[in-house]
Amino acid sequence: MDISARIEAAIGKAIAEGQGGVAPPRLASALDYAVTPGGARIRPTLCLHVALACGDDKPALSDAAAISIELIHCASLVHDDMPCFDDADIRRGKPALHKAYGEPLALLTGDSLITAGFEVLARVGDADPKRALELIRILGIRTGMPYGICAGQGWESEEQIDLSAYHKAKTGALFIAATQMGAVAAGQEAAPWEELGDRIGEAFQVADDLKDALLSAQDMGKPAGQDAANHRPSAVAELGVQGAIDRLNDIMSGAIDAIPSCPGRDDLAQMVRKTAERLVPAKAIQAAE
Amino acid sequence: MDISARIEAAIGKAIAEGQGGVAPPRLASALDYAVTPGGARIRPTLCLHVALACGDDKPALSDAAAISIELIHCASLVHDDMPCFDDADIRRGKPALHKAYGEPLALLTGDSLITAGFEVLARVGDADPKRALELIRILGIRTGMPYGICAGQGWESEEQIDLSAYHKAKTGALFIAATQMGAVAAGQEAAPWEELGDRIGEAFQVADDLKDALLSAQDMGKPAGQDAANHRPSAVAELGVQGAIDRLNDIMSGAIDAIPSCPGRDDLAQMVRKTAERLVPAKAIQAAE
Repeated sequence: MDISARIEAAIGKAIAEGQGGVAPPRLASALDYAVTPGGARIRPTLCLHVALACGDDKPALSDAAAISIELIHCASLVHDDMPCFDDADIRRGKPALHKAYGEPLALLTGDSLITAGFEVLARVGDADPKRALELIRILGIRTGMPYGICAGQGWESEEQIDLSAYHKAKTGALFIAATQMGAVAAGQEAAPWEELGDRIGEAFQVADDLKDALLSAQDMGKPAGQDAANHRPSAVAELGVQGAIDRLNDIMSGAIDAIPSCPGRDDLAQMVRKTAERLVPAKAIQAAE
Repeated sequence: MDISARIEAAIGKAIAEGQGGVAPPRLASALDYAVTPGGARIRPTLCLHVALACGDDKPALSDAAAISIELIHCASLVHDDMPCFDDADIRRGKPALHKAYGEPLALLTGDSLITAGFEVLARVGDADPKRALELIRILGIRTGMPYGICAGQGWESEEQIDLSAYHKAKTGALFIAATQMGAVAAGQEAAPWEELGDRIGEAFQVADDLKDALLSAQDMGKPAGQDAANHRPSAVAELGVQGAIDRLNDIMSGAIDAIPSCPGRDDLAQMVRKTAERLVPAKAIQAAE
């Protein structure tokens, strides 16, 4: 099975578990709505590539690690789109979840998906209890407070923002989870894999700033120009378009250098290079020229 | 250390972990606001009593099990008080969290506390990885979909409510978590402990209906008369006040019969009896007479 098929199969199974038994039907339906269509699945894809580069000796753990991150990511999109945050009407080209199901179910969908992220890891724990617990620990650190995506979003309610902590938590956290959890699922230490995730997260943030500034809402499947509208810090505002593109290229070179030694290092480097190319669509580069 | 001191110490430590490092200060402060003052801490107290009745041979696991449930409970209070659900202004005698910190931080506080619930269990996992994973599994089942408190709250968005599934998920879930997790933390099987938690949860629901109908907002530290105002199903509406009190007594007798065989069965039975007496304050009984 290729990586994309592994991810979709594992997500489908996790959502079906949440919908099983005597579940409230609308919330059950909202769980599926929140995770489809999948978009690039960039975090779980990165996680599985790292696991494969490290040997992928426990595929059930690798799959669970990958999709646990995606479930948390989807939860954060649902909550961030709600009126008290971005008040976004569209997401992935369809109505945002709270527009389709109402705010109460949007709140509960996010809560249920966060929970499901931890559950999928616990469920495959018998394959290797120590690795599974380490995966749960990392997922927790990169989701909650003080270093996870909750912390990242929390910085937006501060008058004084620690920009470095803000970006590392808001965007970097789940990329760091992806590289570290891919390695841990395959029996490696987490620590050497932090820098790679951190750099890819930084690149992703710059790319997101570029897309927000250069693409239309139709191209993105969500509202454009939100950074400027919400006075959010942005690499484009700071460095200009060309400066931001140069910065993106620098970061990705650093990311490749940061890949720890492992059996599949060359393949992984190639995957990271391809990710860099896909981060900013040609359309955005053309718009900049 | 007595049970209450163990709970407060463990909660304080978990919140301090969430506030550590470079955390956004307002969200860090909101975490503490959400878990204090503690109220009765009825779920973690029950959990620790069960652990003690089963030998409490790994106190770090028992403490983590107990407070993981309380963190999830506090998260649910914060989210349920938000305008899209109960729109409650007061909680535990002070402004509801979204009134004190705003809706964005209320949403993030709930998300962070859910995450913290799983993290505290992962953090003590080295004490016994298999038990820790089983605890995380149970916490997930009783928090998310299809059987957890998220599912319970989700039923309120359905036109057709499955009343039995609704009550078991909304109120029963965290009591079942309390009895099962207390037992698992001390090395026992989870399954025999479900009925005790289920019955205590049922009693708690009836008691809550009685308090909502009979006490003032000041006595409860939160708005009164919400069931009637929101047309929610209630044992008082169904059975009348005296009928609800009789039902409560029947359930609690059944709960005591349901306690599985364990070294501390007699002490636990006494604790359950005391809990029953405390569930409905004398003031409410007087108001009914």
